[in-house]
Amino acid sequence: MLHFAQFGAGRIGAIHAANLAGCGGRLRHIVDVHAPAAQALAERHGAQVSTTEAALADPEVGAVIIASSTDTHADLVIRAAKAGKAIFCEKPIDLSLARVDECLEAVQAAGVPMLVGFNRRFDPDFAELQRRIQAGAIGAVEQVVITSRDPGPPPVSYIKVSGGLFRDMTIHDFDMARWMLGEEPVEVFATGSNLVDPEIGAAGDIDSAMVVLKTKSGRMATINNSRRAAYGYDQRVEVHGSLGRLIAGNRVGSTVEQADAQAVSTEKPLHFFLERYALAYRAEMLAFIDSVTKGSPMPVGAADGRQALVLADAALRSMAEGRVVRL
Amino acid sequence: MLHFAQFGAGRIGAIHAANLAGCGGRLRHIVDVHAPAAQALAERHGAQVSTTEAALADPEVGAVIIASSTDTHADLVIRAAKAGKAIFCEKPIDLSLARVDECLEAVQAAGVPMLVGFNRRFDPDFAELQRRIQAGAIGAVEQVVITSRDPGPPPVSYIKVSGGLFRDMTIHDFDMARWMLGEEPVEVFATGSNLVDPEIGAAGDIDSAMVVLKTKSGRMATINNSRRAAYGYDQRVEVHGSLGRLIAGNRVGSTVEQADAQAVSTEKPLHFFLERYALAYRAEMLAFIDSVTKGSPMPVGAADGRQALVLADAALRSMAEGRVVRL
Amino acid sequence: MLHFAQFGAGRIGAIHAANLAGCGGRLRHIVDVHAPAAQALAERHGAQVSTTEAALADPEVGAVIIASSTDTHADLVIRAAKAGKAIFCEKPIDLSLARVDECLEAVQAAGVPMLVGFNRRFDPDFAELQRRIQAGAIGAVEQVVITSRDPGPPPVSYIKVSGGLFRDMTIHDFDMARWMLGEEPVEVFATGSNLVDPEIGAAGDIDSAMVVLKTKSGRMATINNSRRAAYGYDQRVEVHGSLGRLIAGNRVGSTVEQADAQAVSTEKPLHFFLERYALAYRAEMLAFIDSVTKGSPMPVGAADGRQALVLADAALRSMAEGRVVRL
Amino acid sequence: MLHFAQFGAGRIGAIHAANLAGCGGRLRHIVDVHAPAAQALAERHGAQVSTTEAALADPEVGAVIIASSTDTHADLVIRAAKAGKAIFCEKPIDLSLARVDECLEAVQAAGVPMLVGFNRRFDPDFAELQRRIQAGAIGAVEQVVITSRDPGPPPVSYIKVSGGLFRDMTIHDFDMARWMLGEEPVEVFATGSNLVDPEIGAAGDIDSAMVVLKTKSGRMATINNSRRAAYGYDQRVEVHGSLGRLIAGNRVGSTVEQADAQAVSTEKPLHFFLERYALAYRAEMLAFIDSVTKGSPMPVGAADGRQALVLADAALRSMAEGRVVRL
Repeated sequence: MLHFAQFGAGRIGAIHAANLAGCGGRLRHIVDVHAPAAQALAERHGAQVSTTEAALADPEVGAVIIASSTDTHADLVIRAAKAGKAIFCEKPIDLSLARVDECLEAVQAAGVPMLVGFNRRFDPDFAELQRRIQAGAIGAVEQVVITSRDPGPPPVSYIKVSGGLFRDMTIHDFDMARWMLGEEPVEVFATGSNLVDPEIGAAGDIDSAMVVLKTKSGRMATINNSRRAAYGYDQRVEVHGSLGRLIAGNRVGSTVEQADAQAVSTEKPLHFFLERYALAYRAEMLAFIDSVTKGSPMPVGAADGRQALVLADAALRSMAEGRVVRL
Repeated sequence: MLHFAQFGAGRIGAIHAANLAGCGGRLRHIVDVHAPAAQALAERHGAQVSTTEAALADPEVGAVIIASSTDTHADLVIRAAKAGKAIFCEKPIDLSLARVDECLEAVQAAGVPMLVGFNRRFDPDFAELQRRIQAGAIGAVEQVVITSRDPGPPPVSYIKVSGGLFRDMTIHDFDMARWMLGEEPVEVFATGSNLVDPEIGAAGDIDSAMVVLKTKSGRMATINNSRRAAYGYDQRVEVHGSLGRLIAGNRVGSTVEQADAQAVSTEKPLHFFLERYALAYRAEMLAFIDSVTKGSPMPVGAADGRQALVLADAALRSMAEGRVVRL
Repeated sequence: MLHFAQFGAGRIGAIHAANLAGCGGRLRHIVDVHAPAAQALAERHGAQVSTTEAALADPEVGAVIIASSTDTHADLVIRAAKAGKAIFCEKPIDLSLARVDECLEAVQAAGVPMLVGFNRRFDPDFAELQRRIQAGAIGAVEQVVITSRDPGPPPVSYIKVSGGLFRDMTIHDFDMARWMLGEEPVEVFATGSNLVDPEIGAAGDIDSAMVVLKTKSGRMATINNSRRAAYGYDQRVEVHGSLGRLIAGNRVGSTVEQADAQAVSTEKPLHFFLERYALAYRAEMLAFIDSVTKGSPMPVGAADGRQALVLADAALRSMAEGRVVRL
Repeated sequence: MLHFAQFGAGRIGAIHAANLAGCGGRLRHIVDVHAPAAQALAERHGAQVSTTEAALADPEVGAVIIASSTDTHADLVIRAAKAGKAIFCEKPIDLSLARVDECLEAVQAAGVPMLVGFNRRFDPDFAELQRRIQAGAIGAVEQVVITSRDPGPPPVSYIKVSGGLFRDMTIHDFDMARWMLGEEPVEVFATGSNLVDPEIGAAGDIDSAMVVLKTKSGRMATINNSRRAAYGYDQRVEVHGSLGRLIAGNRVGSTVEQADAQAVSTEKPLHFFLERYALAYRAEMLAFIDSVTKGSPMPVGAADGRQALVLADAALRSMAEGRVVRL
């Protein structure tokens, strides 16, 4: 049985801790600057509130979950690597590519396994779509269309430390595009606007974006993003190949369809990531524990986290310069 | 925390035991004539293998789950009632109405709460449909159409002890019809055929049926049943009211849609009840524990189990006599 | 080119006259007791207003369309047959089976071709469903579920001369059931209620019904009817076979799907038969002209019109006596 | 009644001629270099085969339809304008912007009305989507996603005279984007690949493309194109606004859904533009005749034809230079 220390006892931390327990893991240490949150989560899972030092020094601990604030990720990755722990790190590793590279070096030097929390790779719909691509259902992939729209914008205080739309939100879509394209993008074009909330613009960020990626062999992906979707979290992927098309759509709470004097209607998509990706978070934890236990490669590793950031940085540059950025 | 004794360690028993653990219950005793199954389930959940006597004598046990073979249900219900335990009983209570009445008397005399395992009442789709009826979304209910088709027939050995299609399979649909009609049926018409497996006919049963129910105010329900659906478990409910229509459809494993040179296709419905009603089984256990704990009425009780059997018996008589049976 | 005389210049007559013109027919005579309607339709299509006698005496006329009020159909069929004209007769031929038999004799004696206007046989969706049954897509047919609901009830004055729900409305569904079952029903069960409009009940009719039909080999069909559907004309057919299921659904005016803060919605079904069966009426006329021209059998003939009425009469008796009527 | 001369008796010419007849127009002259085609179409519609001179000299002719090969459009537009005829011109007006401007000048000088054949503006689904935008159903438009994929590539001989993908195929999508955005794009980014047919690449063209457009206020549109879709013509538009989302999907031949041991499937989209846009072509002709007759503005005029070409030219430049082209 794999024993864990977890950094971060917030909303996403609570999810990982619960999944860990349900997946045959054992949580020993919770570390969080916010003591009451740490205490509550520790009690719920029979863990103890610890310091980073104590948690990493515990020889029983085989793995860490890094679900604290983004600015702490890199430091914790490096320290966990040096302590020889397997690492489950929420995205992004860091907002600075240089810092990410330091993490990758530390992880490589220590020879520890690391998973980066691109939850969508574990979503049953996207995973089934990917499985069919692999099975040849649509022949050679040619174009990918990714729709990724949040139900509503976060507070501007969050926007300011988020690294901007491309590094904070689109980063998931960059990873999805890489996964679905089956090839590395070598050209990036991006543009964006401030259409949703003027305060986001005032903070120097955009809230609406469109991106086009292209691989060496000419495959293309396009991403459309918005910080607002009145009907809920809109997360769809469409892949076109030489033999056909695959679409993974949104999930709803129930299959109920209502027909009345107005229209024929079904439920809105599940509201946001906690609902939509509940199954994905669980599958992600299972995959992490499975890889650590068996010593098999992580399904999505540190290099994937780095590459998505490379694309986000290229998107920023493309938007600023109004041109394609070649990688 | 509610402590349980469970009778039956088979397929459905394993589900209830797992849900119980996940819903804050504690399993203390497992009773099963098949020792290895009892042993395995007991080990998985930290329970002990017991006899019926020992299990019911344990004062720590507040509730029992009866998930053993149908012919043992009534005896266990009566004994559990006398022992003062809350009762979760898989459907049917018994195939004989007289025996069911003995159970109801025992339960009433003991004043213990009892839930009958009509899992579909806890299915999120049917529950949402019912919630909308209650909310007035379609006005007064007028007609109900229930589609209920198994992916494939059970072995004839099972058919022989099942009580026949109406008592074994349609019984769920009778309960669903009562729930959706919001009124008690007073007229029953049923007919059936042997179209799927000649051995079922040779065993004196049917494998395909159509039923029409009518309430005193003139509301109607129709049920179509088959022991075979090449595309998987087909479980749909359609309710028509004065202001509109509600449909609850099948669930699929993924939202992936494939378009190719042949067609545009989606996945088949989830294969059978274990998959389709996984969420329902869990919600059912939660509701049971909640009702026992709070002393609130069971959402579906012994009288509901009885009434569904009354309808099944009436259906048998209707089919035999080619006429409407009035209740 | 086939030349026509048409009886009836009302709503459905206008449709047939227009289709006839678009299908290579030529309308010569319009007969209607309501002179202005006859005049208007005659002018629109370059025809002349005539009497029945004159129209039937015209040797140029090869075919008649009977789209006048129901009580005139039988007389016109017999006179047209005697005049040697091919006959396109709106359903029903007559409300009396004896009278229908007189028509069939006259048609047979004259050796003229006759099509009965069961428009649904020509609906592209139902026709495609039937084509797939024939192609073996779902193996042997086992059960048919027909949903047939009008958007709103007709005036009671119409109800009073309609022959009642089974002969007026369900008659289409009886024909559909026969077509989809691929076998003749030998057992009929029907029940009904007055749920929509008390005046319909006061007029001695029902407005809501459920029917079950069974063939000799045990195939079954169920029909649900209502004179009211708040969301528009609901016309669906579902056929279950040994290898799968086919469903033909409703048609909508546009494919537009709207997602907003309330729901994800699509348009209501096309409002009523004029909209829903517009394509069917045209295909029906093409098939009639084609059969007359080539001398090939009518796709749906006088015997089909008779058999649907036999089922309607049996349904009435079944409802009155609360039992299965065997044919 | 409006009398017409038509240039071009090919596939699209035959459609226009038939629609014209059904919309209350009268075809007098057919002009085509291919005499047998001209003869056949003339006979079908009671017109005469003429020369351009004779057709334009006929004072009875109030309008012309230009459905001949692209390289003849501009010359015919200018001559028809000088002859004072109303002009229905298939897209594109010409592949050269300079030449298009000559046409616009001639049309303006003559004061004749002109419709450019952007058929999709008349598609009932896209028109309904547009109607809802106008009605405020989704608030302010923010992003548009256009999917436009042909079932298969045309012969390379056609590619060579087509003006390239952007001018030949995407031009429709540029017009659609302008229409849906409700603002003029001022930035164009485009990229493309040769993925479908190497001969298209050898001919100097692309067969797969992605485009991003942006308006002054920051609204964005993205277009994905391919010359191949194994499942048929894929023509969808998705518009996101501040209050919701509208999608117009593909049309199918029937609503039949089949469930079997493999999957649940529906028909492929209608095969190509002749099938998909049949209703649009008819509505387009009605709109043209209506505008000419009433003297009301054309729903899509010469300036729209010009602007779509401006965007196509900008796309070509953007792809060549790897940068945003600002208009």
